[in-house]
Amino acid sequence: MSFLQEVVDILLAYIVESFDRETKVIDFHYPNELMQRNNWELQDEPESLDDILVSCRATLKYAIKTAHPRYFNQLSTGLDMVGLAADWLTSTANTNMFTYEVAPVFVLLEYVTLKKMREIIGWQDGSGDGIFSPGGAISNMYAMLLARFKMFPEVKEKGMSSVPRLAAFTSEHSHFSIKKGAAALGIGTESVICVKGFVPFFVSATAGTTVYGAFDPLIAVSDICKKYNVWFHVDGAWGGSLLMSRRHRWKLDGVDRANSVTWNPHKMMSVPLQCSALLVREEGLMQNCNQMHACYLFQQDKHYDLSYDTGDKALQCGRHVDIFKLWLMWRAKGTIGFESQIDKCLELSEYLYNKIKDREGYEMVFDGKPQHTNVCFWYLPPGMRHIVDKEEKNKRLHKVAPVIKARMMEYGTTMVSYQPQGDKVNFFRMVISNPAATFEDIDFLIEEIERLGHDL
Amino acid sequence: MSFLQEVVDILLAYIVESFDRETKVIDFHYPNELMQRNNWELQDEPESLDDILVSCRATLKYAIKTAHPRYFNQLSTGLDMVGLAADWLTSTANTNMFTYEVAPVFVLLEYVTLKKMREIIGWQDGSGDGIFSPGGAISNMYAMLLARFKMFPEVKEKGMSSVPRLAAFTSEHSHFSIKKGAAALGIGTESVICVKGFVPFFVSATAGTTVYGAFDPLIAVSDICKKYNVWFHVDGAWGGSLLMSRRHRWKLDGVDRANSVTWNPHKMMSVPLQCSALLVREEGLMQNCNQMHACYLFQQDKHYDLSYDTGDKALQCGRHVDIFKLWLMWRAKGTIGFESQIDKCLELSEYLYNKIKDREGYEMVFDGKPQHTNVCFWYLPPGMRHIVDKEEKNKRLHKVAPVIKARMMEYGTTMVSYQPQGDKVNFFRMVISNPAATFEDIDFLIEEIERLGHDL
Ligand SMILES: Cc1ncc(COP(=O)(O)O)c(C=O)c1O
Ligand SMILES: Cc1ncc(COP(=O)(O)O)c(C=O)c1O
Repeated sequence: MSFLQEVVDILLAYIVESFDRETKVIDFHYPNELMQRNNWELQDEPESLDDILVSCRATLKYAIKTAHPRYFNQLSTGLDMVGLAADWLTSTANTNMFTYEVAPVFVLLEYVTLKKMREIIGWQDGSGDGIFSPGGAISNMYAMLLARFKMFPEVKEKGMSSVPRLAAFTSEHSHFSIKKGAAALGIGTESVICVKGFVPFFVSATAGTTVYGAFDPLIAVSDICKKYNVWFHVDGAWGGSLLMSRRHRWKLDGVDRANSVTWNPHKMMSVPLQCSALLVREEGLMQNCNQMHACYLFQQDKHYDLSYDTGDKALQCGRHVDIFKLWLMWRAKGTIGFESQIDKCLELSEYLYNKIKDREGYEMVFDGKPQHTNVCFWYLPPGMRHIVDKEEKNKRLHKVAPVIKARMMEYGTTMVSYQPQGDKVNFFRMVISNPAATFEDIDFLIEEIERLGHDL
Repeated sequence: MSFLQEVVDILLAYIVESFDRETKVIDFHYPNELMQRNNWELQDEPESLDDILVSCRATLKYAIKTAHPRYFNQLSTGLDMVGLAADWLTSTANTNMFTYEVAPVFVLLEYVTLKKMREIIGWQDGSGDGIFSPGGAISNMYAMLLARFKMFPEVKEKGMSSVPRLAAFTSEHSHFSIKKGAAALGIGTESVICVKGFVPFFVSATAGTTVYGAFDPLIAVSDICKKYNVWFHVDGAWGGSLLMSRRHRWKLDGVDRANSVTWNPHKMMSVPLQCSALLVREEGLMQNCNQMHACYLFQQDKHYDLSYDTGDKALQCGRHVDIFKLWLMWRAKGTIGFESQIDKCLELSEYLYNKIKDREGYEMVFDGKPQHTNVCFWYLPPGMRHIVDKEEKNKRLHKVAPVIKARMMEYGTTMVSYQPQGDKVNFFRMVISNPAATFEDIDFLIEEIERLGHDL
């Protein structure tokens, strides 16, 4: 107990530090170097609890401060105190979601929360089904699995040899998990994006693409799906949370026509990792698709209502309790708390966009105001601004972002992601999901990019 | 911060209570009743932090005390203080495993630990590959995915239509996740367990079956796999941990011949949920099988050694940090600490077996000493012991375990699982994985079964 309290004291100090702008976002070391900096090896003999505390401190010393107001590197950032407390409680309760028997409260909370999310999507009375899965990639895979099963239920027993060759449609900017899903399910990545002669069974529209933050036109896509009787999935892993904002939810107009929706509270809502939901319009389908009737878990003669044993809907057997942190945060903030947090992040990104769109040395990667918090741009150091030869310029520009990023990590002052895309050379992809970020942090980011990239 | 400390105080009190035999394992209520007992609804408006603390207390009040020394209901039980501290730290660090960039220490610790596990399996110098996945079911699915890809790499792009009909082999007592995997991957459940004319590609031997705790003869199975050039997977989700025991590891003789091994530290090693590893003998295969080269995560021009960006091996995109709790517990206990914990659980189950095998009113479900901690038995109340008619007896006996179990939950004194299997009517499946359990707890269980079942 006193050991646990000592660890808590270390953690509380770490949290205070993480929110402090004077602290480095990262104390970066190359893998080989980090391997040397501490003894990380596993031994036969036990260590003392004091040594264990030393390991905890070392681990935190080299960890990324994902709660830091200047950490912009991923879609998941920030640290909510209620969410964290809920995650600690979850670890302490240490149970599995597969049956009501071993997770009575958590099963109910999952029920309540999924229903609420379906109401927000706009399905009548919040009806339908759903599950929390270990991330958006798996949620998307569930959707594809359900779509295939819906069209060809025999696939469960007979496999893909019993069905025609299938095609799944999605945009070029969709998340790679759609292709991973197709590969895993035996559909094949070549069947994603329109191959002639194949039977279309699945369309995934993205609500908030990973890189540009773009929203596919859901109503138009749903019309086509309806016409051809194809499963309509909305991947709202990143953009789904905008449904909670009265100002921004129009970007998802038509989402209520979806057969399934992926929505990751662990991204834009700052719920601690992992927390991803798949919502399904049709009730019962998940159960039919995935159930295997394991009689050691799902005995039919239990003394309570068996519909609360949700485990057989899942691809997983044991399933981590991901619900409590979302539920508790929702109680603490209310829907309006999430709304204002989301609105604020979008304001910050609009501020960034307005600040750099006409600023010398910046070029935007796509036209127009960002739809989500993604702002994609190139920074051209002064020495490159007057190069006329397009090819020469791109060649040099391609190297700018990686160098600035490496320097950011070495100084530890901030972190933002960069990448190439198609024929576009490396650009910065700025995203904001941390409620702790402010206008000053955006100003800082721009200054820092210029400071670190000026000489390139 | 003071809010977090208040939650910690609640959690510490809960932990003390959980280990106290005077505390109920569960304060059971039927779903509808539990729904009424508290206000679990989500609202638009925020709640005060005091209300949040009330919710935390209510959640714990109705939670199962999985750490309780008399909780025997699942394969995952117990609560290790170092493991818990590590999980709290993990939540606080709140990051993703996909790149070294955002999880430098955790990526290294995963590397160190997977290597150690491969050494224990017996692969030369610990070479090979692996990943921590969200549970044994997913680990098994990975294995099947890799086996298919190994034999038919074109399946990734072209799907199942490019390959012959496949067959996977496993025993009747294998875990249902093998069938779930086959259904998801488009192989079909009918292809699991030998269909003529199909091409065998995958054999899953179970090291510690879920219900009987039996070990398939790995050497014999591996010989057959070698002869027919079929992927040899060992599902050691439950039994893999016996590799850490010098006394018991012979039960897995031949495991070093496997192409892949599932091993769940969250079961027999009492690591907090979720913690499951898939170990793979061949290096590079996971990467080839699963990679999609998402350039927003896995930029090729990063400034560090890219082999530490393990994310593209995974089916997932974001991946929860499951490694730290295992690593920290390993440091605290040493390999010998895990060994003695495992040996002790096996001793307890032998004690139980010896105690009931000739005791009046008990019948064992299978012959001989248990190989793992599973002890499967029927309890016959006095009034049923002299029934001669087999059918009549079975009919009545089938109802005994569910009633005793329901009574256990109502009194909250202990919990143990029961189930039917094939033509065998409901029996108790006792398993022991909680290091806090003692001989007295086993005595208690027997007394309690008799107390609650005497009148049936
Ligand atoms: C649009 C989209 N879908 C799915 C995912 C996958 O989510 P996760 O990382 O939770 O698996 C992402 C992750 O960035 C995403 O941006
Ligand atoms: C033999 C075996 N394999 C796989 C699994 C699945 O493990 P998990 O619950 O971690 O998905 C289990 C779970 O009981 C098991 O007993």
